[in-house]
Amino acid sequence: MALLDRSLRDLLTAFSSPDPTPGGGSAAALASAVGASLLAMVTALPKTRDGTEENRAALASAAAVLAGIREQLTAAIDADTAAYDQVVGAYKRPKGSPAEQAERKAAIQEALRAATDVPLGVVRLSAGALEQAKTVAAHGHRAAASDVGVAVALLRAGLLGARLNIETNVGSVSDAAYVEAVTAETVRLSEEAGRAAGEAEALLWVR
Amino acid sequence: MALLDRSLRDLLTAFSSPDPTPGGGSAAALASAVGASLLAMVTALPKTRDGTEENRAALASAAAVLAGIREQLTAAIDADTAAYDQVVGAYKRPKGSPAEQAERKAAIQEALRAATDVPLGVVRLSAGALEQAKTVAAHGHRAAASDVGVAVALLRAGLLGARLNIETNVGSVSDAAYVEAVTAETVRLSEEAGRAAGEAEALLWVR
Repeated sequence: MALLDRSLRDLLTAFSSPDPTPGGGSAAALASAVGASLLAMVTALPKTRDGTEENRAALASAAAVLAGIREQLTAAIDADTAAYDQVVGAYKRPKGSPAEQAERKAAIQEALRAATDVPLGVVRLSAGALEQAKTVAAHGHRAAASDVGVAVALLRAGLLGARLNIETNVGSVSDAAYVEAVTAETVRLSEEAGRAAGEAEALLWVR
Repeated sequence: MALLDRSLRDLLTAFSSPDPTPGGGSAAALASAVGASLLAMVTALPKTRDGTEENRAALASAAAVLAGIREQLTAAIDADTAAYDQVVGAYKRPKGSPAEQAERKAAIQEALRAATDVPLGVVRLSAGALEQAKTVAAHGHRAAASDVGVAVALLRAGLLGARLNIETNVGSVSDAAYVEAVTAETVRLSEEAGRAAGEAEALLWVR
């Protein structure tokens, strides 16, 4: 059954079980999906920061971007588990003959790239949501400041968690150009997102 | 329906809706519950860091503590939403007569304390889980290092999120001694937990 269709209670039990999945990759995607959802919530509140048209227009623009990000982060929760299951399956392939060994090696490489691409998507989406968090912090209702603060903390954690999964998986990928491109993008987005998160947090405590 | 009984998909939709609950408080408890679950997972893996009896004994001890923490963090997800609903209900009480005004004021104060005590519990439990994270990082299987890293990031985010909710609610509590005690404990636990998280992270990258 898809993780998205399981009850929260069952999901927490699944995270605590020693089965290979779900693990940290899906947990990171979940954290960012909750963060993006909380930001979407603040954009949808009837009240805005100052009650101006400017506030409403800015929040509507953020809401449109966050809707897409939220949907993709939600999908990444199951996608990460599927990708990791593929890695585990590839390592279990037969390796008796040279042909089997070559096929197994190719399957492992393909699976590792998929298991890197999913958390790379989570890094990109989390960074995108943190960019929108600045707008939500500047124009959203003050009474929801702690919700925006929690959202920023969850998106930071989701991004870092996805980054840890990228680092783990990309270390076994043999395509050097791919490894270099993924690593460079991850570092760049982490830095940009860290700045955006800090700016959003600074806006929240201006009263 | 309890949040724990809802599907993950419905829960994410609920977090994104403009209804007052569920909000950042339940999201913070959820983040820490997932973090504690991932730590429990690593304690239950068949492999340990060096395959020693010492590893196994340390992980068994951490597992016992984490089981209780995980259960209480899981309960806090719904408890925070119930407490916040109580605050909203108290503010909606009639305030026509002096007697009604006094009753409303008392109900608001009682509800605000409950809405502070729940995230204070999340701060305590998250700090307790981060203390155990040091043991899990030192004795758990190296292949699960990224899971421990994600767990630490989620517990940091859950603790910070709970702290933001405490600060929001305690600001309207009139009992100065309670406010001072809660604030002091929150600051102390945040500092201790930050140190524990840093120590756990440092252990993870020792290869």
